[in-house]
Amino acid sequence: MKKEKLLMTPGPTMVPHEVLMAEAAPMIHHRTPEYSDLFTQLNKNLQIVFQTKNSVLTYPAVGTGGLEAAVVNFFSPGDQVLVTSIGVFGERVATIAKAFGLKVDKLAMPLGKAVTTELIEERLKTKNYRGIFVTHNETSTGAFNNIKAIGEVIKDKNILFIVDAVSSLGGLELKTDEWGIDVVVTASQKALMASPGLTFLSISDRAFEIAKTSKCPKFYWDVLKAKAAMEKPSPQNPYTPAVSLIRGVNKALELIIEEGLQEVFERHSRLAEATRHAVEALGLKLFATEGARSDVITSIKMPEGIDGEGIKKIMSEKHGVIIAGGQQDLKGKIIRIGHMGYVDEGDLIKTIAALEKALLEVGYTVTLGAGVTAARERL
Amino acid sequence: MKKEKLLMTPGPTMVPHEVLMAEAAPMIHHRTPEYSDLFTQLNKNLQIVFQTKNSVLTYPAVGTGGLEAAVVNFFSPGDQVLVTSIGVFGERVATIAKAFGLKVDKLAMPLGKAVTTELIEERLKTKNYRGIFVTHNETSTGAFNNIKAIGEVIKDKNILFIVDAVSSLGGLELKTDEWGIDVVVTASQKALMASPGLTFLSISDRAFEIAKTSKCPKFYWDVLKAKAAMEKPSPQNPYTPAVSLIRGVNKALELIIEEGLQEVFERHSRLAEATRHAVEALGLKLFATEGARSDVITSIKMPEGIDGEGIKKIMSEKHGVIIAGGQQDLKGKIIRIGHMGYVDEGDLIKTIAALEKALLEVGYTVTLGAGVTAARERL
Repeated sequence: MKKEKLLMTPGPTMVPHEVLMAEAAPMIHHRTPEYSDLFTQLNKNLQIVFQTKNSVLTYPAVGTGGLEAAVVNFFSPGDQVLVTSIGVFGERVATIAKAFGLKVDKLAMPLGKAVTTELIEERLKTKNYRGIFVTHNETSTGAFNNIKAIGEVIKDKNILFIVDAVSSLGGLELKTDEWGIDVVVTASQKALMASPGLTFLSISDRAFEIAKTSKCPKFYWDVLKAKAAMEKPSPQNPYTPAVSLIRGVNKALELIIEEGLQEVFERHSRLAEATRHAVEALGLKLFATEGARSDVITSIKMPEGIDGEGIKKIMSEKHGVIIAGGQQDLKGKIIRIGHMGYVDEGDLIKTIAALEKALLEVGYTVTLGAGVTAARERL
Repeated sequence: MKKEKLLMTPGPTMVPHEVLMAEAAPMIHHRTPEYSDLFTQLNKNLQIVFQTKNSVLTYPAVGTGGLEAAVVNFFSPGDQVLVTSIGVFGERVATIAKAFGLKVDKLAMPLGKAVTTELIEERLKTKNYRGIFVTHNETSTGAFNNIKAIGEVIKDKNILFIVDAVSSLGGLELKTDEWGIDVVVTASQKALMASPGLTFLSISDRAFEIAKTSKCPKFYWDVLKAKAAMEKPSPQNPYTPAVSLIRGVNKALELIIEEGLQEVFERHSRLAEATRHAVEALGLKLFATEGARSDVITSIKMPEGIDGEGIKKIMSEKHGVIIAGGQQDLKGKIIRIGHMGYVDEGDLIKTIAALEKALLEVGYTVTLGAGVTAARERL
C-alpha cells in the first residue's frame, strides 16, 4: 500500500486539511472588500500569536526573505551589528548582513550549544552595536536560545533586538512585547503549520522609526511601504499578496488560537520530552547540550558506524516517516526529528517505532519497543 | 443565492480546480526525491512555455520580486539603463532601478500607447545603455509593446534586453530565444492561471555571465545561487521553496501545454477581439490606442458622467462579475476587463451581459444584448 508519509521534519511541516482547503478555495482579487476583511483578520490573529501590539507585516516570500527584510530595513552600510550564531541559520543572517555592507561581528557557539548572556555582555562592552541578531530555535542543531534572558541583558541599551523565530513561533513561548523584541521574523511552514511561501515580521515603533533613516537599498522588502498600505481604511499590500497562502495561514492561526497558545506550547514541550526520553532509552545520545534542547526539534547523534543518511532513507522508504538528516558538516552524523506544528502523540509514537526498526535494520542493537515505551511514559 | 463571483481581473485570475487541488495536496519536504522530480518537471515545463532553452528560475515571491531580481542581478550602482514606461508597471521598474542606484533614463509614453522602435532607436544613439527594460503587457492601460520589433532594434548592440512579461506570458506570444530576450520575468497568478506567490525568470547565458560582475547587494534574489542549486544532480533551491504553489503552477503549465501554446494564444486573441467588438457595439471607446490593444486585457473609457468605480461595484455586487477599475490618475475614468488565463467564451459573455446591465443601471443608454450579440459574432 502506498500511504502518505508522515512529515516529521523541521519544515515544511504537515498542514491540517482545513488549512489546505482554505488554500484551495476559489481565487479572489486582492482589491476587494472580501480580501480586506481577510487581511484584517490575519493581522489580528498574527498579533495574538506573536504576543504583540506591534504591526505584523506579511510578505510573499519564505523565511530567508524575512531575514533579508530585517537586515535591509533597519540598518545602513557600515553599521556595526552583532550576529550570534548557533548553526546554519545564524550563519545565514551573517552572510545576508555582510552582503548588504553591514559590519558584522559574529558570536558563534560550538554546534549544539546555545549562546550565553555572559558572552553577549562581554561583546557589548567592546563596541556600540546598532543591532543584535539572535536565532530563537536553530533547526540545524536542535538547540534554542533563551530569548528572555538575552532581552534582559540588552534592555535599555539602545540596540535593536532582532529575533529569527522562523522555526519557533507558534511552537516555543516567545513574548515579543514583554521580552522587548524589536523585530521578530517567522514563516508559514514551520510551527504555524501552513504551506511555505509567507514570511512575517513584527516591528516595534522604535524599529519603524529607525527604518526611516536606513540607507540599504530596498523596494520589495520596504517595511514603511507595507505598513502604509496596511493602515489604509481598507487594509492592502503594496503589491499582489499571496492570497491563497494568506487564507491558509489565517485558518492555521485560528486553529492555534482555538487550541490556546499555552496549550500549544505545552503540547510541543510534552512531545519533545517524550522524544528525548525515547532516544535515551534506545541508548542514543542527544546532540544538543542539556538546557539548550529545543521543544520543536530533537537532534540525535548517530553511534559510531551508523550513517544517519541511511537511517533517514530506511525510515522514509520502508516505514513511511520523513525525518531530516544533518546539514553540512553534520551530514550523516546526526538525524533530526521535527515535532513542530500539526503533530500529535500518535505521530510521535509512529516515528519512534520507525526509528527502532531502522536502527535494527542497520545492525544496531535495540530492544524493540524500548523507545516507544519510554515515549509513552511521558505522553 | 450566493454564487462564486467570476474573476475577470488582470490577476490574480481564476485558477482551475485541478490546479487548486494540486496546491492542496498533503505537504512534502523539499529535500526529497519526490520534490526533485517535481522541480525537474516544473523546470522543463517552464522552458516550453517561455519558448526558451535558457534556465528558468523560480522564486517564492510575486512579480514585483521578479522585477527586483532583474535589477539587482545584472547591474551595478551607477549603470546606465533605459526603462521604457507605458504605465504603472513601467514606472515601478524605474523606481526599483533607482532604489538600487542605477542611472535610469525613462522613455515614457502617454497612457494607452505603446513605445515605438523609433523612439528607442533615438535614445540608443545618445548613450551607451547597459540594459533596456520593456513591459510586454501593461495591465494598467491595456496596451502592449511589440517585443519582437524592439528585439530587432537592439540586436547586436550589447544591451541586456529585459522584458516584464508578468501579465503576458502564457497569454500573448513571446518567443524568448527567437526574439533575443536576455531576461523574461513573469508570475504565477496571471495568464499562468495559478495562485499568486511565485515569480519566474528566464536568463540567457550572457545575462548569467554579467551577473557574475554585478555589484548590487543581494542574497534572496541571487540568480547564481539559484542556478547552482538547480543544477545539482537532484535539483534543489537555495532555501525553502513554496512547495504547494510549485505543484499548482506545474499542473497549470501542463494544462497549457496540453491545450497547445498556439491554441492558448488564439483563444486569448479571440476573446480580446470579441470584447473590443462588444465595447464598440455598446457605444463605448477603447482606452488603448489601435494597434497597441492587448489580447489579455481590455481597458474601456467611461463616457462623460459615468463613474467607472460605480460600474465595477454594480457588476460585482449585483451581477457577480469582478472586473478592475482604473489605477491612480485613471481611477473612475476607465474600467478594465481581464481575459487572461482560465477564461472561456461563456465567461466573456456573462461579463459583457453584466456590463450592459450595470450601464443601464447607472442611466447610460444601451440596447440590452447589443454587446453580447457583438461579442458572439467574433466567438
